[in-house]
Amino acid sequence: MPGETTRLFLSDATREAHALLRQWMAAAGLETRIDDAGSLRGTRRGTAPGQPALLLFSHVDTVPNAGAFDGPLGVILALTVIEELGATPLPFDIELIAFSEEEGVRFGFPFLSSLAVTGQLTAEHLAKEDAAGVSVAQALRNFGLHPDQIAETCALPPKAFAGLEVHIEQGPVLEAEDRSLAVVESIVGQSRFLLTFTGHANHAGTTPMALRSDALAATAQWIAEVERYALDYKQLVATVGHVEVLPGAGNVVPGLVRATLDVRHPSDASRHAATAVLLTKAEAAGERRGVRVKAEIKMQQNAVPMDRVLTAQLAEAAERAGFPVNAMFSGAGHDAMILAPHVPTTMLFLRSPGGLSHHPDETVREQDVEAAIATVLEFVTALQPPQ
Amino acid sequence: MPGETTRLFLSDATREAHALLRQWMAAAGLETRIDDAGSLRGTRRGTAPGQPALLLFSHVDTVPNAGAFDGPLGVILALTVIEELGATPLPFDIELIAFSEEEGVRFGFPFLSSLAVTGQLTAEHLAKEDAAGVSVAQALRNFGLHPDQIAETCALPPKAFAGLEVHIEQGPVLEAEDRSLAVVESIVGQSRFLLTFTGHANHAGTTPMALRSDALAATAQWIAEVERYALDYKQLVATVGHVEVLPGAGNVVPGLVRATLDVRHPSDASRHAATAVLLTKAEAAGERRGVRVKAEIKMQQNAVPMDRVLTAQLAEAAERAGFPVNAMFSGAGHDAMILAPHVPTTMLFLRSPGGLSHHPDETVREQDVEAAIATVLEFVTALQPPQ
Repeated sequence: MPGETTRLFLSDATREAHALLRQWMAAAGLETRIDDAGSLRGTRRGTAPGQPALLLFSHVDTVPNAGAFDGPLGVILALTVIEELGATPLPFDIELIAFSEEEGVRFGFPFLSSLAVTGQLTAEHLAKEDAAGVSVAQALRNFGLHPDQIAETCALPPKAFAGLEVHIEQGPVLEAEDRSLAVVESIVGQSRFLLTFTGHANHAGTTPMALRSDALAATAQWIAEVERYALDYKQLVATVGHVEVLPGAGNVVPGLVRATLDVRHPSDASRHAATAVLLTKAEAAGERRGVRVKAEIKMQQNAVPMDRVLTAQLAEAAERAGFPVNAMFSGAGHDAMILAPHVPTTMLFLRSPGGLSHHPDETVREQDVEAAIATVLEFVTALQPPQ
Repeated sequence: MPGETTRLFLSDATREAHALLRQWMAAAGLETRIDDAGSLRGTRRGTAPGQPALLLFSHVDTVPNAGAFDGPLGVILALTVIEELGATPLPFDIELIAFSEEEGVRFGFPFLSSLAVTGQLTAEHLAKEDAAGVSVAQALRNFGLHPDQIAETCALPPKAFAGLEVHIEQGPVLEAEDRSLAVVESIVGQSRFLLTFTGHANHAGTTPMALRSDALAATAQWIAEVERYALDYKQLVATVGHVEVLPGAGNVVPGLVRATLDVRHPSDASRHAATAVLLTKAEAAGERRGVRVKAEIKMQQNAVPMDRVLTAQLAEAAERAGFPVNAMFSGAGHDAMILAPHVPTTMLFLRSPGGLSHHPDETVREQDVEAAIATVLEFVTALQPPQ
């Protein structure tokens, strides 16, 4: 889009990004192709045919009005590492995968590319439609692809033994720690709910405070409690991101409020326990005011651990490169989460200045990019495929 | 409207209501006319020409999808009282006024009829436009009226000495007290604000609780405090009726919230003092979280006392009729508020079952209507105009 970075799945912008990236990949000596789910893939052959394969991957799609780094940085950084490797002989192939669909914007569903490469893309996924009523399958065909060949062309290399995704942190932790990099030990689990608080709409002038059943007052007490509880609960994040108030007039006591709840924690058990407490608090806030509370679960996703051995090796590589790292949790989902159950996988995070992402001002520091390149080079050159 | 009661200012429904009411007024012996602001007026002549006049009034317009009683009950009840008076000689005229514009729906501005009869309708009021771009002046002309003659035809009778509006309470107080009626000693003052809480939108997964600047958490703490403060402050009502959250996604920490605040109290000084405290609480809730708070005043209206002598006489009349009353405040605005500075005025409230109004289920109890008729009859027959 003119004046902003918006690169949706299978758009013209994707086609242009593919053309440019493909040229750069080819110049770096990679064999390139686009699989039938629309991912651009480039392979650096190892010293012998039929060798194991290391996967370096991230995504090139973006949210609307995005920054330049969420996704593309991981792809370009991997390509840079491959360029730096030059002719260095390695006992494995490297497959660089630029996923085209991670953010879930166009079809309201994320990770379509990584689901395809792990054999998890279903007919239901292919039938999902965008705002214009175009299905995923039709969009793939419009892009010149063959959705019926996804199983064959998208499959990971049969001897894939390790995966690494480099990504910006999209949060403020590394900046607060004053570090360039972190390794990711786990991607947190999430629970999402929609809560409905039902009280009684009443005239704001004629209804004394003691005779109200104010759905917003109940919701407000609860939101403040959600914040307080999560502040005190280690590693928990709990967010009420949206609230809808009905009837929503300044002079009417709110009769109905809908509120979202997003709860994340690296431990699934802790997340479930915290969620149960938070939902109980909502009921208590309602009960005091004669407000009924209903909670519907909208999404539930368990934590995904990264491979312990690979993550330790990545941390050692960073240390050797001169950039000591801590391990952290990823509070956001990533393609690494989809690949991890299929191939031992880890992630490297780069500091996000201001914690900013999904915004045109999203950025990275040059020194952190250099640190990441040096770390991944160390990691790759030290890596030994299983015998 | 078919299936619902929606009677807007100068609509066909108003015309039909006028035709029917006018017929009933004439049958009760009243001289009828429609003034050039669209109010239907009926006069019962006293025992001699040029006598003082008692005003009985309420409105016949409604909000959309309204009930049957908010407004029309006061008109019909006054007409019933006049019918009951029969040929009883009274030393004053009675002018029954059915205002056509109280709710402010069509032109987004209330009390146009009562402003007209008190000489307060300005060119600015006449220029206000409805959703279709029709001005008040044009709508009056379309209805067959002459806006340029408002000053002459709308004026109150020169010797108007007392005014009484009978209205449903629109709140739960009488029901809670198990009484039929109340006299109104004052219509409360109001202050309305729009508050803007500005924090930082952030990723709900990657932003630890301690590093957030959550505009909704700040707003929520404040809303709970508004409720608590008003519960403890005698006669205060304070309402946050609408909240808008941006960006408003379940997985994004809210960066900006707009919230309304409506504060009402019978004492203007108390209202100002309470408002100052509530705005300070908003700033404190913001400050804890790095959230800036801005408050814009949207409306400010002082309390309007009803006439003490008339209110006492009305209470005595109720007592004599067998329906002892308490005095209460009106939390809502009424035409009586516009007339009171010009003519000594009081109000009688009828119990609102369920506290319900502005709703098709709005109702009144037959026994309470009987109590009101008996009370007004007592009041009118005992009333002595000033010598």
